[in-house]
Amino acid sequence: MRRAVKVFQHERRLRTAGGLSVRDITDEVNEAVAESGIKDGIACVYSPHTTCCVRVNEFEQGFMDDFAALLKRLVPQESYYAHDDWDRRTENICEEDMEFGNGHSHCMSMLLGSAGESIPVRDGELLLGTWQRVLFIELDRERDRRWLVQVVGS
Amino acid sequence: MRRAVKVFQHERRLRTAGGLSVRDITDEVNEAVAESGIKDGIACVYSPHTTCCVRVNEFEQGFMDDFAALLKRLVPQESYYAHDDWDRRTENICEEDMEFGNGHSHCMSMLLGSAGESIPVRDGELLLGTWQRVLFIELDRERDRRWLVQVVGS
Amino acid sequence: MRRAVKVFQHERRLRTAGGLSVRDITDEVNEAVAESGIKDGIACVYSPHTTCCVRVNEFEQGFMDDFAALLKRLVPQESYYAHDDWDRRTENICEEDMEFGNGHSHCMSMLLGSAGESIPVRDGELLLGTWQRVLFIELDRERDRRWLVQVVGS
Repeated sequence: MRRAVKVFQHERRLRTAGGLSVRDITDEVNEAVAESGIKDGIACVYSPHTTCCVRVNEFEQGFMDDFAALLKRLVPQESYYAHDDWDRRTENICEEDMEFGNGHSHCMSMLLGSAGESIPVRDGELLLGTWQRVLFIELDRERDRRWLVQVVGS
Repeated sequence: MRRAVKVFQHERRLRTAGGLSVRDITDEVNEAVAESGIKDGIACVYSPHTTCCVRVNEFEQGFMDDFAALLKRLVPQESYYAHDDWDRRTENICEEDMEFGNGHSHCMSMLLGSAGESIPVRDGELLLGTWQRVLFIELDRERDRRWLVQVVGS
Repeated sequence: MRRAVKVFQHERRLRTAGGLSVRDITDEVNEAVAESGIKDGIACVYSPHTTCCVRVNEFEQGFMDDFAALLKRLVPQESYYAHDDWDRRTENICEEDMEFGNGHSHCMSMLLGSAGESIPVRDGELLLGTWQRVLFIELDRERDRRWLVQVVGS
């Protein structure tokens, strides 16, 4: 199909629970896609934070617990992190971080991959598989957060 | 360049071999991009499954074996997974999963990152580097699967 | 908004330092986005190499050191890699690789996730959070590299 392009953006705020908590944002993302009026295109769901990410996977509590255990095993919070070493650090000084070290959270988010997910849109809906949900993952403490969705298509 | 937008979607089915098997789908994705008539844009190659993913990397059997060994070491199948604990689990009950636990497969796919890959398209082809191939990775048992490509551009 | 689509591509070359070195390419990517004239859309920042990747995260030297230490612990260079076993390997023979094994670099890049990052563009700029920077990560030795940005929008 050849048509004029549409670009739509939507942003939402949330308060996370901290501690590797996961929020299922699928319905909100689909509402935004519906509001965009875009029938076919790509939706980029994006976390603008460096210690959160958006992932597509199943939302089942047992799996969330399994994955949290895995992440904690691979990236233990109690290790030494130069990012949290205030005798050494000179860049990006943030008062809040001095109280709550989050070197492990940064390492987790880098290991998890990209900040967002690009998902095909068809017939005005995210083209998710049967068990796929859009998940907002907090890798740091309880915080005020945002996520964005950018839809490009026609 | 300023033109009417084109959005093109293509879907393929495959039967995987299971056991961290990898299928090189580059030629099929490039055929779909050619069929789209889109010269410049972005191709989002996407797995709609929660225990598969699409990655771009070299396709060389030694590396595939190395990566399978790494994944099995980081995420051992024989560990306890709450996702596979049917005395505890209450959500998303799926008969097939009760026979073949796949908690480790979900953890692997989350660790591997996003469900798909976004690849630039130029002159009607995926803009892949010399050794880059588009890989469909099965993290679960032998199953019927699908992958999608959504191309947006002009 | 409904307008004609614009697609813009830009490519840059760099010489990396090797050894898990990281280059902050945010300003260069933003310059390319500005040059594109695209106000709203998606920017796909992409590495065409199989042992590099583009990630969005904080650029702070302590964190870079922490992440390098984590990657080396999870994917040790001194392990056996079939990819580097020239008595066994028959595919994709590359003279340079015979001198410098890079099986670990491939495993690292696969573990890190997708080859690139898709970032929303608003008002002609990457929509990055406060601490987010676009990082080009070298997982192999010192090499000549390229990165691309493809912007689609209006």
